[in-house]
Amino acid sequence: MTYKVIEGGVCAAQGFLAGGIHCGIRKNRSKRDLAFILAEKSCAAAGVFTTNKVKGAPVWVTMKHLANHTARAVIVNSGNANTCTADGIEKAEQMCALMAETFSIPADEVIVASTGVIGQTLPIEPIIKGVVAAPSILSKEGSDLAAEAIMTTDLTKKTLAIEFTLGGETVRMGGIAKGSGMIHPNMATMLCFVTTDAAIAPSMLQKAVSTVAADTFNMVSVDGDTSTSDMFTIMASGLAGNKEITEEGEDYQTFCQALTVIARYLAREIARDGEGATKLITCKVVGAVDTPTAKICAKSVICSSLVKAAMFGSDANWGRVLCAIGYAQCNVDIQKVDVFFKSAKGEIQVCKMGTGLDFSEEKAKEILLEKEVEIFCDLHSGSGEAEAWGCDLTYDYVKINGDYRT
Amino acid sequence: MTYKVIEGGVCAAQGFLAGGIHCGIRKNRSKRDLAFILAEKSCAAAGVFTTNKVKGAPVWVTMKHLANHTARAVIVNSGNANTCTADGIEKAEQMCALMAETFSIPADEVIVASTGVIGQTLPIEPIIKGVVAAPSILSKEGSDLAAEAIMTTDLTKKTLAIEFTLGGETVRMGGIAKGSGMIHPNMATMLCFVTTDAAIAPSMLQKAVSTVAADTFNMVSVDGDTSTSDMFTIMASGLAGNKEITEEGEDYQTFCQALTVIARYLAREIARDGEGATKLITCKVVGAVDTPTAKICAKSVICSSLVKAAMFGSDANWGRVLCAIGYAQCNVDIQKVDVFFKSAKGEIQVCKMGTGLDFSEEKAKEILLEKEVEIFCDLHSGSGEAEAWGCDLTYDYVKINGDYRT
Repeated sequence: MTYKVIEGGVCAAQGFLAGGIHCGIRKNRSKRDLAFILAEKSCAAAGVFTTNKVKGAPVWVTMKHLANHTARAVIVNSGNANTCTADGIEKAEQMCALMAETFSIPADEVIVASTGVIGQTLPIEPIIKGVVAAPSILSKEGSDLAAEAIMTTDLTKKTLAIEFTLGGETVRMGGIAKGSGMIHPNMATMLCFVTTDAAIAPSMLQKAVSTVAADTFNMVSVDGDTSTSDMFTIMASGLAGNKEITEEGEDYQTFCQALTVIARYLAREIARDGEGATKLITCKVVGAVDTPTAKICAKSVICSSLVKAAMFGSDANWGRVLCAIGYAQCNVDIQKVDVFFKSAKGEIQVCKMGTGLDFSEEKAKEILLEKEVEIFCDLHSGSGEAEAWGCDLTYDYVKINGDYRT
Repeated sequence: MTYKVIEGGVCAAQGFLAGGIHCGIRKNRSKRDLAFILAEKSCAAAGVFTTNKVKGAPVWVTMKHLANHTARAVIVNSGNANTCTADGIEKAEQMCALMAETFSIPADEVIVASTGVIGQTLPIEPIIKGVVAAPSILSKEGSDLAAEAIMTTDLTKKTLAIEFTLGGETVRMGGIAKGSGMIHPNMATMLCFVTTDAAIAPSMLQKAVSTVAADTFNMVSVDGDTSTSDMFTIMASGLAGNKEITEEGEDYQTFCQALTVIARYLAREIARDGEGATKLITCKVVGAVDTPTAKICAKSVICSSLVKAAMFGSDANWGRVLCAIGYAQCNVDIQKVDVFFKSAKGEIQVCKMGTGLDFSEEKAKEILLEKEVEIFCDLHSGSGEAEAWGCDLTYDYVKINGDYRT
């Protein structure tokens, strides 16, 4: 599949408006805290959600609404997760009802999400005020404002849109995401909202989202904590006019490839912007007996606090990489493992067949001082491959999380 | 079982000498780096070891030696893990051979361990020199020197000895341990060596060690990384003259209780001395459907980076506790969970039936500022109980691990 990166985020596809405002859930008036996406018409819709048994109230409500595989709008607040509170479901449903009333759409076609502190009652008054203002602020240029409004401890907006060809028609797809801490998605992800004007049957859309999430968002870890609010949804308006995708085949493959481009990019951006992070760490595992084994190993390396701290110090401590592969619950012959460190500054092999090599510490340091570093592991046992993404563990992670609430 | 804490560490039991010296593996001449324990006679011996597939060479050698369930001596170096190097097994066997020659004991009755950096060749010359000096430094007063010599990033020596009654005879048991980072034992532990003068059959000794490890060392986590060098061994000289324990019954129970006292104390000391830690965190879970569920939940809370960082900030962020229980792979009804914070300053309930309470932040802060804090969770679903121990996540953890090797 070939594609072109375009502007517009979630408004790049035909049939979508977006926007973001400060409504008052956050004290800081310069930080937007309420985001909207509105579709011209009912869209095919699908999503994947956190596997945490503690699910935010908006997750339950959105799961219910997406059971009918259609959606018209998204509303998201930051600053409060609306999770573990007595009236959470009521408040989440109220947010959908407000959208329904304001835009004359069915309440059960609204996707609702909340992100922020757990366990504090969500103030509904600012949201009422915000939804009243929504019609006047929604626009084709609103994607960046929506991307901003869903940020919590994120330092950067995360957005990407692309254009590609599907069944001879030009199709657009774009997404926005947030995520910085409490990042260890499990069969789902942090918040990510994707729109497309491709025509695709809801069942195929669900299949695509689930498949793509497994190789993208579910391969990211910032701190090993699976959030209660994870959600990755997609709305497809069909306005591109391509022949509707109703089964597996070339068009479905193209669609999945496009969705992978968006999701992989946003997943990597989330890892790069991990709380306190100074660098993006990729662990690429090849030569595993199978793909699940490669995934387990790559995630184990990315999740190791000791590997993460060593990366912060640009320390070529490959023993910790081997150790993390060693305790991963999978089938690996440690005596066959090779480890390399790679970056824009070159690459260096530090371990061959499970044993340390005599390498240049100076060269290794130069490689590891880069802002993007790859830990490459060849297990020499088969053809399973996987990539996982994470970040280093820094003083600032501790600072940010030592007193987040106050 | 009643017991009395006594002096002497691993020399408290009859029949054991110990000592520790600086032999030169570490550059710093004031840091001891070689420890010895010597038994007067062949002892019943048993051990449990790391489940990491990457095992240090000394772990392989000691596992082989303990297959015959007898041991006469322990030799341990710090400063180098003798792991992931080409000549590791050879060097570990050489350490045993040196002990055998010097003390005229069988080489396969030597327990050998190494702890420190992974992947660097172990220099054997300092150890040869050290073992030559061993006969002149071993004494009944040498336990503290041995405890010092096995320390790596540990800030405190970890040792305990007790006296109790077994079949009418006075019996002594004592242990030393090390561990500070790369602590997430799995069916085994960091380094811990226990001696006793109780008479007990090797099979019962093995059973006792395995059982006790599961509830003590295996319930500690500092950073979620399972070390390659974990080892917990015990030697029983039988010199106390009690009727040998050859089956389950009252005496075996008493023996296990005594071993639990030693192991639990040392496990907690390891958690308290976690790299960079400012406080000891206990998570006590009660009311679980069964004990395994209670253990999984308690460990999940103790391992959460977000919970650990909140504890560093003395922040009563109970939502993270609930979140960690929520993603634990076990059967919990989140709608029934109560959470309390407890310390010497009192206790406070912060969550009732999965929902936040309106509590005094000031009181919670006062409780959490203590050096020992308990997170108490009642799942209200049965009678399963467990405790797990960990520590907070601090700037200093990152500092220590950002550049450990250089």
